[in-house]
Amino acid sequence: MADDNPTISYEDLASIEDDFEEVDTEIMRKQYEISQPAYEKRAQAVAKIPTFWPLVFEQAPPEIDQYIQPADSQIINEHLESIEVNRIELDEDSSSGNPRSIRITFDFKPNEYFSDKSLSKTFWYRRAADGWTGLVSEPVKVHWKKGKDTTEGLNDGAHALFAARKKVGDMAGKGLPEYTALAKKLEHWNGSNTSFFTWFGFVSGRRYVSAEESKQATEHYQRKKSARKDDEQIAETDAKDDDDNDDDDDDDDAEDQDDQVVEVHEAGEDLAVGIAEDIWPNAIKYFTQAQEMGDMSDPEFEEDDEDDEEEGDDEPIDIRRLVQDTGNGRSRASDGPPAKRVKR
Amino acid sequence: MADDNPTISYEDLASIEDDFEEVDTEIMRKQYEISQPAYEKRAQAVAKIPTFWPLVFEQAPPEIDQYIQPADSQIINEHLESIEVNRIELDEDSSSGNPRSIRITFDFKPNEYFSDKSLSKTFWYRRAADGWTGLVSEPVKVHWKKGKDTTEGLNDGAHALFAARKKVGDMAGKGLPEYTALAKKLEHWNGSNTSFFTWFGFVSGRRYVSAEESKQATEHYQRKKSARKDDEQIAETDAKDDDDNDDDDDDDDAEDQDDQVVEVHEAGEDLAVGIAEDIWPNAIKYFTQAQEMGDMSDPEFEEDDEDDEEEGDDEPIDIRRLVQDTGNGRSRASDGPPAKRVKR
Repeated sequence: MADDNPTISYEDLASIEDDFEEVDTEIMRKQYEISQPAYEKRAQAVAKIPTFWPLVFEQAPPEIDQYIQPADSQIINEHLESIEVNRIELDEDSSSGNPRSIRITFDFKPNEYFSDKSLSKTFWYRRAADGWTGLVSEPVKVHWKKGKDTTEGLNDGAHALFAARKKVGDMAGKGLPEYTALAKKLEHWNGSNTSFFTWFGFVSGRRYVSAEESKQATEHYQRKKSARKDDEQIAETDAKDDDDNDDDDDDDDAEDQDDQVVEVHEAGEDLAVGIAEDIWPNAIKYFTQAQEMGDMSDPEFEEDDEDDEEEGDDEPIDIRRLVQDTGNGRSRASDGPPAKRVKR
Repeated sequence: MADDNPTISYEDLASIEDDFEEVDTEIMRKQYEISQPAYEKRAQAVAKIPTFWPLVFEQAPPEIDQYIQPADSQIINEHLESIEVNRIELDEDSSSGNPRSIRITFDFKPNEYFSDKSLSKTFWYRRAADGWTGLVSEPVKVHWKKGKDTTEGLNDGAHALFAARKKVGDMAGKGLPEYTALAKKLEHWNGSNTSFFTWFGFVSGRRYVSAEESKQATEHYQRKKSARKDDEQIAETDAKDDDDNDDDDDDDDAEDQDDQVVEVHEAGEDLAVGIAEDIWPNAIKYFTQAQEMGDMSDPEFEEDDEDDEEEGDDEPIDIRRLVQDTGNGRSRASDGPPAKRVKR
């Protein structure tokens, strides 16, 4: 903007915010690129510590931990082998992909709850026609073993509704029997009082946005940004915004508001971001913290657990010993640290 | 580390954490570099909005706002012209400077409180011989006008003690009259119940660390990191750590613990980081939020203010009108938005 421009508009400030957002996007790309070697080295190292990821999740901060119920903890503690986070658009195109689209993959040992060896959930960063942006995801089916579904049918219901909507070609469709069934199930559930595994059924914090809608909305947004920049360059003229420049609110908001009611995990986006931007980069810190907690642990802080009889060994932890117990279950070397299982 | 290495030690994990830290440092440098044009554009734009920085501070989050007392708010609201944050080591050397050292500069209009036009506080990121890292700073003297010192002498006391310690060459010295005087003053004060301006007297969250001590400690740390990396490369051997590798705790901690008692603003480091990493990059968001709050504001939410008589105009805000009131004092255009002054 010209130095002698005596006035500043919201559009001018919005244009500067656009610049900051572009910087953030660029920095996220760069960070993904240059941190890959450290993540690969970490993956190789922690593959040798069977308790690594279960202990990391035990130390998850409240924003994440609040969505992990006792039954979930048991599955994670005993059967989680590893997690992995990918920035999928950057894997395709490191220079222009959106770094906010993520895939989170959980690998499990064979277990009595479900037959999946791996549950991989993809979150696409999308822009709706009305300017909303956020992560959307297709429900991932968990193949529960008989009587073992901790989500009490919510995950299956989300998956069935999405498939039915896709079939009729209306992602907001409410006339479907799958909609009625899931809406009824959800009267008393919303993700904060259900199993962590309902998160695999998450679709969106508002409504599903297709790749096609997002593509058009993004092009529209880019034109708007360019127009703001052009405005800057001719700041002294009274350039009027064109049609493209003034429609953040002229949309189907009212319709969108209603669609939330069939989301099985309302905080699904926050949880995804929390795993990708806190648990994943800080895993070694959480693991170390778990070891220290284990070191200080006291019988009265332990939940009931059939394997507690050997606890009370307060010696410094030797990971080498922990690691040598590479049996099928969670490491329970009797001279290892008693793992802290208390929930904060 | 070799794939066939069957064991993992804490040193191995620490070495991976070293790699992540190097990535973070590199990313901070890159971010500083590529965001400069946006910051420059913003500085030019907001220079035309006299209420910009006061309104940003009004919206500061609790972590910062808790240290701003009513008298401080008055000074900021009426006299703060602008702030600026620099990564001083990067300004000197963009490729190897530490991005964590910062300088925060407040520019003020001529006012009845102090004669300084500008108060600039520098925080150096330093490493102590015992491995502690953090920001240290020399007290900045505020030239208070008679009877106007909101810090009630604490700022002067911190400045005098630092000068006296420098003179005798003992930065932890306690035998000095300036030490006794400040310690006595501080019996009931700690930064959270004193004026924001005591922050200009902040030295360190623990003790002052000189550039020379930090230089030696950093070289020592680098050798340790290299040794960890070498360990990795010869993972199968039983390479013993050398002396350099095992002394994070064999130091003068006990002595250090005591030195905190004469810090005039115990949370000074958090406050500096909060200003540099939240207020500074998010200023436009906070300003916009302040405008929206102003829009919704209601007489009952307003503090006593002599200029409230024209409030209640709930029309959308036109910054152009705000800006045109570029008088000496804070913009109070009668048809502008009533600024929200309530403290959260």
